Order: sequence, then C-alpha cells, then structure tokens
Amino acid sequence: MKSKGLFITLEGGEGSGKTTMLQLLSSMLLEQGLPSMTTREPGGIVIAEKIREVILAPEHTAMDGRTEALLYAAARRQHLTEKVEPALEEGIIVLCDRFIDSSLAYQGHARGLGIEEVLAINSFAMNGRFPDLTFYMDIEPEEGLARIASGEGREVNRLDMESLEFHHKVREGYRIAAQMYPQRIVTIDASRTLEEVSEEMKRYLFAALKEFAV
Amino acid sequence: MKSKGLFITLEGGEGSGKTTMLQLLSSMLLEQGLPSMTTREPGGIVIAEKIREVILAPEHTAMDGRTEALLYAAARRQHLTEKVEPALEEGIIVLCDRFIDSSLAYQGHARGLGIEEVLAINSFAMNGRFPDLTFYMDIEPEEGLARIASGEGREVNRLDMESLEFHHKVREGYRIAAQMYPQRIVTIDASRTLEEVSEEMKRYLFAALKEFAV
Repeated sequence: MKSKGLFITLEGGEGSGKTTMLQLLSSMLLEQGLPSMTTREPGGIVIAEKIREVILAPEHTAMDGRTEALLYAAARRQHLTEKVEPALEEGIIVLCDRFIDSSLAYQGHARGLGIEEVLAINSFAMNGRFPDLTFYMDIEPEEGLARIASGEGREVNRLDMESLEFHHKVREGYRIAAQMYPQRIVTIDASRTLEEVSEEMKRYLFAALKEFAV
Repeated sequence: MKSKGLFITLEGGEGSGKTTMLQLLSSMLLEQGLPSMTTREPGGIVIAEKIREVILAPEHTAMDGRTEALLYAAARRQHLTEKVEPALEEGIIVLCDRFIDSSLAYQGHARGLGIEEVLAINSFAMNGRFPDLTFYMDIEPEEGLARIASGEGREVNRLDMESLEFHHKVREGYRIAAQMYPQRIVTIDASRTLEEVSEEMKRYLFAALKEFAV
C-alpha cells in the first residue's frame, strides 16, 4: 500500500489560511524541482462531482445528516482512487485541501454524528490510505472569521455564517483528531504572520521529504 | 427507537420468488385488516433516486466498488429515514424487498469487499434500525436462474448474467448473514411449491405479529 509519493493534507477552520499555505507549499516544491500536485475534493473527478451535486442540490432539504456523511465518504473514495493514488504511485507529492479530519471535526464533532462513527465510514472509504502528514492550522474562530470579514483571502460562504459556537465545536473536533493521530497531525499556530507560519511548515515538509526519500 | 410497527425484509438470490412472496404477504395482511406497506429502495424517495442514478449511470464505468457500497448505504439511509421509519411510527407493518442482507451477500461476500466492512458502513446508515424479521428465501442458484429463464416471474436482468460462481457466492454470503443473525433471519426453503412456502412464511409472520402486538 505504501507508495513512492507523499500524501499531505491541510486542515483548519474558516479563515485559518490553509488554502494560501497550500499554494505556498506548492511553490516551494516547484522551486526545489519536486513533482507535486494540489487538489481538493471532488477535484474534477466526474463521479465525485456528481455526488457533490446530490449533496448540494438546494431542493434536497430533507437530506439526513448520515446520508450526507456517507455521500461525502463516497466522493472521498472516488477522488482518492482516481486522482490521489495514481499520482502517489508515480512518486508525486500530493497536497490536498481538506480530507478525513474535516469530516471528523465538522460532521463527527460539530454536527454531532460522533467522531468514531464518522471515522468508521471514512476508514472504509480510505481502505488504509491515511495522509502521511497533516497540517492542522489552528486559530481562534473569532480571529479566522474576522480575517474573512475584512476581505483578507476569500469571499464569505455558507459555513462562515454558522454560529460562533459551531466554529468552536469544529476547533474542538480538530483538537480531538490531533490527539488521536499525534504522529500524523502537526498543529500549526496559524495566528502568527504568514512568514512565521510558512517557515514552520516548510521545516516540517522538508523533514517529511527526507524521511520518505522521494 | 423501537416503534409500534413491524419491519420485515425479504431477501434471496435471483429467482428465489421473494417479490411474489412480498405481494402474497401484503395480501394476507390486508385480509386481516392490518395496515401494511410494501417498498424497496430507493422507493420513490427523491434523494435516494438521485443517488441510484449516480450508481447506475452507464458512463460511470470508473466507479470503485467501495464508492458504490457507500452510495448504496447513503440511499438506504435516506429511504429508511424518509419512508420506512415514519410508517413504523404510525404502527404500519413495512414489507421491504431487499435491505441490509443483500449488501452483505452481494457486496460484502460475492464482490469481496468483506461482510464486516460492509456491515460497518450499513450500521452507520441504519443507526440501530435493523429489521424485526427477515425471510431469506434459499434456493440453488441453478434452480433460481432456470425459473427466470423459463419465464416464470420476471425478465432477465444484468445480475442474472453474472457467472454461476457469483450466484453461489451470493448464496454463501446469505448463509453467513443468517448465522450472524439467527434471531432475526429465518431461512425458507424456496425450492418448494408456492403453497408450501407461503404457508410457512404466514406462520412466522403471524407469530411475529403476536409477539410485537401490533
């Protein structure tokens, strides 16, 4: 199952800066002449896109939380098997914006389905393919949301509008996941400057590259 | 969680006669003046129908077996929560053509995903709602397929065309499920005449009705 490439995921709440960091890490790898690919589910994979359409269709207001979690797991499986794994097999470093830990934090903990239960269906979806390294960009929800509101980064979306309590639950969920997987998940203090954050992530990234000897 | 209604499922390989028996049981209940409903996934539930469309789209040839199993579990969840559970809450006897044991036999055992693994995602989907009684209509695959070929019952479909070995694996999967759930699953020798089979099923059905005191 272990492949030549390296599978890296970025996780975090709204406004934590993970999408910016994904681009920065990708540029770093390019400078080093290392083959890399950035992606996020459903990632242009036709079947995964179709599943997302079912999840997001505005007329599907009757969708049960468990149905939704199973659909996310199904889209994850297809994106993983059609896009991520073939790239890893070719020795490519895959940088993925959100993966299993988003499901654990958002659906498992914040939405109350249970972290262990959401992990069970995602374990089936991943079939042993966990990320090699995960950066969890930790930030106070108030601060992350303020960043978005002030226009740094991206537009406000549906998730941003959830109650502050919800965002605190998401953070709690991520912290539980980080305790469950201390070897895989590195918690990054994302409240610091872009330079400080990217320097720290760079160190972790290159240590991982050495270890996996890509 | 336990409701006033009774949740009965019919299971079996191709040509085992379960759809005919479903209609017969339904007529029996009607004669007794008992409220019942027959259904089968996706059962007219919009979200479940949409998920089925994704599974069955002929252009989705790249669909992974695990993606498919997660989609079936998602459709099951939605059909269960939107159609089966509300009926049970009203005290209706629900007769469902195929349910969890089909997934265990076909996907878990015959397709090789693993019975325990397919059970894990379906346990998430069912959230404790197992059938109260399951009839497994057991028949030699050669005999079941011969029935279909001779035009008794229904048209030949895609599953009928699978190799005989596959249908034997399905039967093996059902037998494992019946051993896992001896209290819930009643194995019916479906090679006998319609009268013999329906008489036996009627006895089990009325015993269950007494026990659950609908």
